[in-house]
Amino acid sequence: MTKVIDFQTDPSRYRHWKISYDGPVANLFMDVDENGGLFEGYQLKLNSYDLGVDIELADIVQRMRFEHPEVKVVVMRSGKEKVFCAGANIRMLGGAAHAHKVNFCKFTNETRNTFETCGAESGQTYIAAIKGACAGGGYELALACDYIMLTDDGTTSVALPEVPLLAVLPGTGGLTRVTDKRKVRRDLADVFCSIEEGVKGRRAKDWRLVDEVVPNSKFDAVVQDRAREFAAKSKRPDDAQGVQLTPLDRSIAADGSITYSAVEVVIDRDARRATITISGPQTDAPADMAAFQAEGAQAWMLRAAREFDDALLHLRLNEDQIGLLILKTQGAPEKVIAHEALLLANADHWLANEVLLYWKRVLKRLDMTSRSLAAVIEHGSCFAGVLAEITFAADRSYMMEGAFEGDNRPLATITLTEANFGRYPMGNDLTRLQTRFLGTPDHVTALRDQIGTPLEAEDASDLGLVTFAYDDVDWEDEVRIFMEERASFSPDAMTAMEANLRFAGPETMETRIFGRLTAWQNWVFQRPNAVGKDGALQRYGTGVRGDYNMQRV
Amino acid sequence: MTKVIDFQTDPSRYRHWKISYDGPVANLFMDVDENGGLFEGYQLKLNSYDLGVDIELADIVQRMRFEHPEVKVVVMRSGKEKVFCAGANIRMLGGAAHAHKVNFCKFTNETRNTFETCGAESGQTYIAAIKGACAGGGYELALACDYIMLTDDGTTSVALPEVPLLAVLPGTGGLTRVTDKRKVRRDLADVFCSIEEGVKGRRAKDWRLVDEVVPNSKFDAVVQDRAREFAAKSKRPDDAQGVQLTPLDRSIAADGSITYSAVEVVIDRDARRATITISGPQTDAPADMAAFQAEGAQAWMLRAAREFDDALLHLRLNEDQIGLLILKTQGAPEKVIAHEALLLANADHWLANEVLLYWKRVLKRLDMTSRSLAAVIEHGSCFAGVLAEITFAADRSYMMEGAFEGDNRPLATITLTEANFGRYPMGNDLTRLQTRFLGTPDHVTALRDQIGTPLEAEDASDLGLVTFAYDDVDWEDEVRIFMEERASFSPDAMTAMEANLRFAGPETMETRIFGRLTAWQNWVFQRPNAVGKDGALQRYGTGVRGDYNMQRV
Repeated sequence: MTKVIDFQTDPSRYRHWKISYDGPVANLFMDVDENGGLFEGYQLKLNSYDLGVDIELADIVQRMRFEHPEVKVVVMRSGKEKVFCAGANIRMLGGAAHAHKVNFCKFTNETRNTFETCGAESGQTYIAAIKGACAGGGYELALACDYIMLTDDGTTSVALPEVPLLAVLPGTGGLTRVTDKRKVRRDLADVFCSIEEGVKGRRAKDWRLVDEVVPNSKFDAVVQDRAREFAAKSKRPDDAQGVQLTPLDRSIAADGSITYSAVEVVIDRDARRATITISGPQTDAPADMAAFQAEGAQAWMLRAAREFDDALLHLRLNEDQIGLLILKTQGAPEKVIAHEALLLANADHWLANEVLLYWKRVLKRLDMTSRSLAAVIEHGSCFAGVLAEITFAADRSYMMEGAFEGDNRPLATITLTEANFGRYPMGNDLTRLQTRFLGTPDHVTALRDQIGTPLEAEDASDLGLVTFAYDDVDWEDEVRIFMEERASFSPDAMTAMEANLRFAGPETMETRIFGRLTAWQNWVFQRPNAVGKDGALQRYGTGVRGDYNMQRV
Repeated sequence: MTKVIDFQTDPSRYRHWKISYDGPVANLFMDVDENGGLFEGYQLKLNSYDLGVDIELADIVQRMRFEHPEVKVVVMRSGKEKVFCAGANIRMLGGAAHAHKVNFCKFTNETRNTFETCGAESGQTYIAAIKGACAGGGYELALACDYIMLTDDGTTSVALPEVPLLAVLPGTGGLTRVTDKRKVRRDLADVFCSIEEGVKGRRAKDWRLVDEVVPNSKFDAVVQDRAREFAAKSKRPDDAQGVQLTPLDRSIAADGSITYSAVEVVIDRDARRATITISGPQTDAPADMAAFQAEGAQAWMLRAAREFDDALLHLRLNEDQIGLLILKTQGAPEKVIAHEALLLANADHWLANEVLLYWKRVLKRLDMTSRSLAAVIEHGSCFAGVLAEITFAADRSYMMEGAFEGDNRPLATITLTEANFGRYPMGNDLTRLQTRFLGTPDHVTALRDQIGTPLEAEDASDLGLVTFAYDDVDWEDEVRIFMEERASFSPDAMTAMEANLRFAGPETMETRIFGRLTAWQNWVFQRPNAVGKDGALQRYGTGVRGDYNMQRV
């Protein structure tokens, strides 16, 4: 699996999903092309999916938010008879490298998070309308919807058969959503997750696995009723014009470096490091939301988010030897602030809301990226507001202090805006500042006094906003030594350490999925009982069960 | 490592710790015998520890709670010059099987939890008085204390060098206690966990790694002052008489089965199953706490807890092929209720408090035991109050319904007591009933109406207190099929599934350590960068650094 995986797609290229728009209701059909797998060696039978199927779904969800403000309800159905979705393709999993499995699950869950929050954040409610077998990742897809409807046709069931069948977990959020979202009683969850055939009909409702069970003859009509009911409750505008997500301006060089319009990624494979530089806006902020809408996907706040998002995904899946991401910005802080301020001032406008929510998701994607993150705050940079969040998302930060010989760019600063105090919460539902100052919560309150003030290194350091500030004499050596040292550590230990240190404080369903569940699944994905040559994943479909080492750990 | 590990010890056998009692202050010295390792193949240099050292510590902590009511402050020191504690022994870890590493870390963290809660629960405050290098598990030991004091002698430091040195995590609570208990700023935590040499002096205080830094010349005097201050605040009685924890009445048969006075463990290796039966009290409850104290370690509530605790630990470390624990009781429910009621009515008596707290810990140990747990509620059983908790801790439960032919024991019942509503919270700080009914919290309130009523199978089932109830016709087959099926699943998948399903709802530092941190450490403990033949653990001490695969997962 060495081909480059591209996260960009558009409706003209979809192979696995079909959509029909019916006023406020979008009807989304999963209809996977068996022969449309991202890699060779497997067929996507029974609406099973691989990363390629999920890349299309992520694109659909994103376009639904931006291009279709009129959509208030999305009904997810199967385009095939007798099967809703059989989950992740087992042969694909069996053949995939550990890193691919892990990153596939992570992206898949991020996509689920995206539409799971859509109802509350954007007034776009997702309904899963299940006819036919709905198993494993298929039920995990349904679990992420706001409302699950099940037909009562005597055979349709929901199931999480991973443990008995494959010796792995329902690890893309399944276990956590069963206990923490659906709040299924833990012993019933234990039974449910131990039976291959799943649960159907009234019992599925009684166990809280679905919200509604409908006789098969009335199913389609009742689904339509529910769609209309949810649509009537939505606050999404009726007559707004969407913004087209035009193709990204992107070119990838032979050495892997990428140039976008506002983002640049420089790859240094020998040093196992990538430097991501975000350029602030060159132009003044749009005068109002009408002007913003006219700029559309070219508006800096939206364009930079899309490019940064794509860069992070690209690095995760295609550059697994890169252990350290150096995060830089360049540009005028006041312009970043102005562009952000327009959206903050119009946060009740659907489009402003969507762009701010998108930044929230991109910053979470950064939090969840299992590479060491270091913000390098140089002269001429623009770490203000939304871009300042990047320094707080980083594992540590280095800031230039005082004038540097031969460098006449404006001195490095960090500028806080109102947005740093609540607009871009982490997965733990705290702001990055709250997480950073968990031991001194009053300090977060005090920092509000600094909103709008460009803070040079000494102040930023005193206020605890950066890890290290160095002057001209020490800068180069200190940053170089850090980068060399970081690149020399065991990548596994760094991944595990960062996964623990980044998320102090309270836990949410989201952090539990990425922290607890994912970590356990990563462990299982290493165990011979699952992935060994006689393990369950390899033997799947042979009719012979996995040969297990029965030792309990 | 196949020798049987015994968790029972007593002061006459200690090799690694020394204690001197000074009124309300206990001075505890870690002074590890290099040649006293539990296994061959390593020396416990520099106050490094293995499971044997921690078994002694657990015994000390337990005896301090029960045998020394007069102790209000425990000062933990090193008995060696220049080193406080170097952490877990690396050669031991390098040579240990995966299962041993994991269970060693789990037990070690449980011991830390025990003294971590001692201050708030029992008025016994732990002070770490650090002179000399305090690294890895050594600092994790200090982190579990209520108050950390560091001498400022120019060399003494605290450190978590696991990641750079060994390519594993500070996994016995270290990372989580740094972020969530000490609330160290996350970028400083990142720096701290990346430097082998650690942090000393004022910086350690500034970074919140320790509570107080004291000039070396005044260190001992200031430690004494602090001990006196904490002692003065304790509500522990001045003149109470302790209860001697006399040796357990225990015999282990050739087939591994164990007979205690109130607990029996029957091992069936072929079926990979152990049946634990707890016998309720044979005698009436003591009339008052004076009578309870006179019975001492023979009082049923204390005796049964100690035996059950020992059985769980024994099974974890010595019977790794056993995947399923069948949990049974036998006896008179009303007697269990009466014995428990005495303690509940006297919960402000230090000894009643300690016994109830001990049950809380034993039940948590059960929650954290990575074996499938099934409660089998037969006729003649006594699942009432504290023993009813066992059915709620189980992954699922089976209950006999109605009369069984040829069985004239009293019908199976479950009886709730006041204690089920708050006396034995889980690690997530919810009761097992609250966790069970997370989706229907009002039901927990309604269940209070059932306190004291023996609930037969139909009622228990209707109230959601048991998973399955079967009559005479189905019972045998259903239970047998379940046990056979469970024993056939991949143990890894079961462990990971149960670790997720058992702890719905909120997270605490404790659940984060056992859930998130442990899961990541388990993963790391499988990775070649740590445990492979050229990994860091194997190469430790050779002067050659681990040879790492630099792929990021």
